[in-house]
Amino acid sequence: MSTPTIREPVFTLTSGPVDAYPAVLRGLSRTIHYDYDPVFQAFYEQVVEKARAAMRLSTRPVILHGEPVLGLEAAAASLIARDDVVLNLASGVYGKGFGYWAKRYCAELVEIEVPYNEAIDPESVARMLRERPDIRIVSACHHDTPSGTINPVEAIGRIVAEHGAYLIVDAVSSFGGMDVHPEACRADIFVTGPNKCLGGAPGLSLLGVSDRAWAKMKANPDAPRASMLSILDWEHAWSREKPFPFTPSVAEVNGLDAALDQYLAEGPEAVWARHALTARACRAGLQAMGLALWPAREAIASPTTTAVQVPDGVADEALRRAARERYGVTFSAGRGETLGKLVRIGHMGPTAQPLYAVVAISALGGALGVLGHPVDIGRGVAAAMAAIDAG
Amino acid sequence: MSTPTIREPVFTLTSGPVDAYPAVLRGLSRTIHYDYDPVFQAFYEQVVEKARAAMRLSTRPVILHGEPVLGLEAAAASLIARDDVVLNLASGVYGKGFGYWAKRYCAELVEIEVPYNEAIDPESVARMLRERPDIRIVSACHHDTPSGTINPVEAIGRIVAEHGAYLIVDAVSSFGGMDVHPEACRADIFVTGPNKCLGGAPGLSLLGVSDRAWAKMKANPDAPRASMLSILDWEHAWSREKPFPFTPSVAEVNGLDAALDQYLAEGPEAVWARHALTARACRAGLQAMGLALWPAREAIASPTTTAVQVPDGVADEALRRAARERYGVTFSAGRGETLGKLVRIGHMGPTAQPLYAVVAISALGGALGVLGHPVDIGRGVAAAMAAIDAG
Amino acid sequence: MSTPTIREPVFTLTSGPVDAYPAVLRGLSRTIHYDYDPVFQAFYEQVVEKARAAMRLSTRPVILHGEPVLGLEAAAASLIARDDVVLNLASGVYGKGFGYWAKRYCAELVEIEVPYNEAIDPESVARMLRERPDIRIVSACHHDTPSGTINPVEAIGRIVAEHGAYLIVDAVSSFGGMDVHPEACRADIFVTGPNKCLGGAPGLSLLGVSDRAWAKMKANPDAPRASMLSILDWEHAWSREKPFPFTPSVAEVNGLDAALDQYLAEGPEAVWARHALTARACRAGLQAMGLALWPAREAIASPTTTAVQVPDGVADEALRRAARERYGVTFSAGRGETLGKLVRIGHMGPTAQPLYAVVAISALGGALGVLGHPVDIGRGVAAAMAAIDAG
Amino acid sequence: MSTPTIREPVFTLTSGPVDAYPAVLRGLSRTIHYDYDPVFQAFYEQVVEKARAAMRLSTRPVILHGEPVLGLEAAAASLIARDDVVLNLASGVYGKGFGYWAKRYCAELVEIEVPYNEAIDPESVARMLRERPDIRIVSACHHDTPSGTINPVEAIGRIVAEHGAYLIVDAVSSFGGMDVHPEACRADIFVTGPNKCLGGAPGLSLLGVSDRAWAKMKANPDAPRASMLSILDWEHAWSREKPFPFTPSVAEVNGLDAALDQYLAEGPEAVWARHALTARACRAGLQAMGLALWPAREAIASPTTTAVQVPDGVADEALRRAARERYGVTFSAGRGETLGKLVRIGHMGPTAQPLYAVVAISALGGALGVLGHPVDIGRGVAAAMAAIDAG
Repeated sequence: MSTPTIREPVFTLTSGPVDAYPAVLRGLSRTIHYDYDPVFQAFYEQVVEKARAAMRLSTRPVILHGEPVLGLEAAAASLIARDDVVLNLASGVYGKGFGYWAKRYCAELVEIEVPYNEAIDPESVARMLRERPDIRIVSACHHDTPSGTINPVEAIGRIVAEHGAYLIVDAVSSFGGMDVHPEACRADIFVTGPNKCLGGAPGLSLLGVSDRAWAKMKANPDAPRASMLSILDWEHAWSREKPFPFTPSVAEVNGLDAALDQYLAEGPEAVWARHALTARACRAGLQAMGLALWPAREAIASPTTTAVQVPDGVADEALRRAARERYGVTFSAGRGETLGKLVRIGHMGPTAQPLYAVVAISALGGALGVLGHPVDIGRGVAAAMAAIDAG
Repeated sequence: MSTPTIREPVFTLTSGPVDAYPAVLRGLSRTIHYDYDPVFQAFYEQVVEKARAAMRLSTRPVILHGEPVLGLEAAAASLIARDDVVLNLASGVYGKGFGYWAKRYCAELVEIEVPYNEAIDPESVARMLRERPDIRIVSACHHDTPSGTINPVEAIGRIVAEHGAYLIVDAVSSFGGMDVHPEACRADIFVTGPNKCLGGAPGLSLLGVSDRAWAKMKANPDAPRASMLSILDWEHAWSREKPFPFTPSVAEVNGLDAALDQYLAEGPEAVWARHALTARACRAGLQAMGLALWPAREAIASPTTTAVQVPDGVADEALRRAARERYGVTFSAGRGETLGKLVRIGHMGPTAQPLYAVVAISALGGALGVLGHPVDIGRGVAAAMAAIDAG
Repeated sequence: MSTPTIREPVFTLTSGPVDAYPAVLRGLSRTIHYDYDPVFQAFYEQVVEKARAAMRLSTRPVILHGEPVLGLEAAAASLIARDDVVLNLASGVYGKGFGYWAKRYCAELVEIEVPYNEAIDPESVARMLRERPDIRIVSACHHDTPSGTINPVEAIGRIVAEHGAYLIVDAVSSFGGMDVHPEACRADIFVTGPNKCLGGAPGLSLLGVSDRAWAKMKANPDAPRASMLSILDWEHAWSREKPFPFTPSVAEVNGLDAALDQYLAEGPEAVWARHALTARACRAGLQAMGLALWPAREAIASPTTTAVQVPDGVADEALRRAARERYGVTFSAGRGETLGKLVRIGHMGPTAQPLYAVVAISALGGALGVLGHPVDIGRGVAAAMAAIDAG
Repeated sequence: MSTPTIREPVFTLTSGPVDAYPAVLRGLSRTIHYDYDPVFQAFYEQVVEKARAAMRLSTRPVILHGEPVLGLEAAAASLIARDDVVLNLASGVYGKGFGYWAKRYCAELVEIEVPYNEAIDPESVARMLRERPDIRIVSACHHDTPSGTINPVEAIGRIVAEHGAYLIVDAVSSFGGMDVHPEACRADIFVTGPNKCLGGAPGLSLLGVSDRAWAKMKANPDAPRASMLSILDWEHAWSREKPFPFTPSVAEVNGLDAALDQYLAEGPEAVWARHALTARACRAGLQAMGLALWPAREAIASPTTTAVQVPDGVADEALRRAARERYGVTFSAGRGETLGKLVRIGHMGPTAQPLYAVVAISALGGALGVLGHPVDIGRGVAAAMAAIDAG
């Protein structure tokens, strides 16, 4: 190939894909078993059990064999019937995006939309449900990654449950990095995946599915069957006695197993704590350098991604390029409406360790300097260290 | 877990998933790069280039991020328009199965179906196309894996091309193990994947797409867009300059890269030769033991899977279980209509080495003995060795 | 490099190095920890504990950081004092070889030597010890690998213990593949390693050391200290509280940990049983093809290596080359006095699985045919299969 | 195990073992080949060729199969004859230590010793050689790791060459991280290894050996032969045609191959540059925080290890423990005479990247704060960033 060689990144501080834990990389290199070998069938059942433990579910989660957009699209296609009214809560690009899928399948799409640096007010959901008692399904994005903001899905879940509607929660980039679980937020379908806070590889979806969601999907004549988009096809696939609808992604399941082992062995509370501490340190450092967070207030800032506003007069792409070329640090850009306005620093899985906040602050601060917008990096790092020391 | 431990298989001689080459397993454990890191974008472009070289394509192949059922379903959903008449060629369970997908999307489904130990006669296709000049799309399964039979897709391709119809070819379990390529069979969409003869992991589809297939898909208003099932979304994703529709399965792409390197470095012709030799040795040995091949005649037997009839009075499941428990060898069962009637011995990727035929013959022969149907294993192995020595 | 590419072997059926278990290969790729990181210090202590469990020792074994020739040389250099009379038992090239090291350090070397297809008669040891009451150290090779023969070290151990002498046992290529342990044979220093029957990598020695051996070494002013050859330097290195004399081979320790896990999880008795069964099947098959075992009688044939005589008129090197080139199977040659006279088929670790006997028989039989000395492979395989079925 | 779990380190910033490059970890997990398989014999020859290229040698380097203490002990044992007068240059614990080995083998040991924060003055060597024309061998440690200081081996080499003596150079922890090569410093034996700046695993030694060193060793009747300590045994082992004295550490050779590929592909000059820049940034930051370097002056500070004085009133062990426990960062302690007086920050292989200096400064500064000796971390990081930006 005549391609000029590009240097490997030194630190990948993105909001995903993030580099996997070393144990996950070794997990990915395990023997590829034949899916109907009894060893694999028993193993698959055990992995589903581990995912259930991690997700704190009373029902068995479903593994879908594509990255979480598959889980989200499949949830929309399976749960939403053609006569359903869907309320989509949009506080960012991902929440908004789910509405496009929902629209494909539902009778009517109702939306609550707030500025993309804000979070959904549960009260507004309650109001809307009172206004529109025909709403049958509510969809919420827990962590709207392109904004780095968190929605109060537990409070929303209580309101939706009282109303009797079904709730779909996208927790792809928050689960595993903070205390969010399907049953705690009363989600009927809760979608996550191994590649964000679990420090796994992209390529699978993990779905928590309530009993009543199974019933609704089965009653939905349009729910995909015999399709990549089907959830129903996989209902019994967890069992070593039952066939797979098609060949599972064996290597990804091997990697997921390792990621779940890592998470459960370290202890979820400990994992969440280091995500939160890293984010606190990062926010403290950025603000000390005079930069502004993208979220309207710190209370809604995600512990798994820090979104920081790009200062006036700075081009986002040039900023990220400078960080990458000068310091070897890769950050994420915004997406859609937030593209160009913010830079995102991921704190996920192996990079959710406080000193990575120092790395991020130094590289971002340095890159601003490269572009002629010097900031006081020393002040930033000192603030981050103080936050770490405060614990 | 209270699960009693199941012994690992010693030899996985299935028709897929097969164990991957060691270099692929190491490939799967490479660093998970952020998909928009310039290193990954350049790498992805190079992998597509390698796939193009392996597939001997003049256009760029598309990687879809799910195992080949995704590729096949996406091909049906994307290429078939609601006013198309589709001719599906069914000589086995997989060929027949594609018809169900085709039916979802087309105006009318026409089928040529032959017994599942037979191959499609190109003449019958020519006849049908003369009878039904309105046929717009023809679909063919090159290697109908559950039967271990090969269809003459090059001859079929010439006839379809003369007629002016579009051709979809499923070469999932033959490409990489024998001389079959998209342009040689004039396929408009040619679907394969890394987990069969390339000795990779399941989790990706590889599609060869002709220029006119792109045009037809773009003109199809029902072709999936913004969906896991979309091919169109990925048209430009090969380019380091262009975005991905969603996060690619980074580890799988890493593994595919290693599988393609292995294939191209060994040399396709050498790889096909060892697949063919292993299959010849296997067939010779089985027949010398008095067993009957499933394919109606050896000329249509696949070089990548040997399907052998289960003798009367023997239960297929007991036979495979005996091979697994006594000798540690895993074989594949039949599927659907062929389930219970045959056992399949895969010769794919790392197991396409002549002495694996000896392993297979010994284990299958031994298992028959365990079940009270002794065969002359010595005779079988001697015949296999003679076939190997004949080269 | 302009080197013409050599095809990878398909089956490595040697008496070591053998390919490692997949779990060991993954173990070797674990993070390289700093040796004084508390994680590594605790880990090292645990690995020594696992080795102690596997070796069924009441004292802590010592890991030396070089392949077992280091262990053997260090044992000679450390235990043998300049005024010691040493009795070396030589029934093969390795047993004989130890005498050369012993001679370097002792006052007088006495030897019992038997033909290299024979085993040491314990009675002869008893006689010699009666004749030479001044013998202070006895050295025995349990499995003289270049001959594929086993010496009765437990019986010898009892006699040596009654005499009060010290016993050095080389069990490098037998431990882990059969029931042999330091205390059962009353060895004062028992040398083995991970790369034979444990299916690990070459690069470490494992030493069982009795309390009185420690005392004797400490009293020996010539025992190496501050040297690669020192055992004494490592006495306390097992403890997480104590320093290492020099940097341990971290990756090898990682691999050893995985090998020990594999051994202990499968269960030593189960592991020995499959080594024994594979060897029985292999011997049955070779003899049925009219080939002669190298050991004078089957009772002394090793369960971990089958040594077979090269038939008259056949060149050993051509035979091994034919097996490698035609069938992809690598065998071991003889060494020293046995070189050219025999071929060795290893049954070690991952290859100690009965069907590998069939692979070996087919490849060796086929190679004889290639050289114009045809044998009845069918008969050989049938006999091997009968032995496997007899269990 | 009842062992309480210890958290994994987040950053291993030691002077070795350092964590290996990911490509090295994958290299370590390659198939373990039989050492006499033609694939391995050709591979070993190629690895020696790559090592020759990396070491810029005209003769073939020797791989010894134990970590570099083996290489150093073997060099002393092999090159030094019993009638040799050896001049050992001691500017630190490692240089001094070599003298103990030299003394074992030589007629007389002469030493030049300087304070352990100083470097050897070439002029003093010239003087000594004039005074003692009978000096036959000179030994020098290039990077005395426990002091983080560099000796001017090129200047020393010129003087020794003029005198006609032999030169042994220990470049274990500098080669690969800066411009130092056997022939440039006229070393007769030059010892290094893969685990420091090459980012490989500990477990091998790499020796550059001059033609006249080979001649002298061969003429030395005491040079080890048939021993782990032998260099002579390995003279021809590089050749695919020649036997190995004993089984090489196959996995380590696989890892070395990957480490050499990485080094040669990135380009030695680029690798040295990032080591130097990281060290410069680290020194700038430490000094800006008011800490004192251990080396007497910056000109002799190593680009691969920064040794910093432990401030008065601070306990070295508590300091390193605080960095490890609070921030997950592991540093190296001093050794011997420097133990307790300094802390060492490694810049080797994968950690020789400028932002690791920021990590080190933050963690060390933070740990000082934990112990009640606060420093201005912000100032430190700002200075480090300025050094990085100055390039």
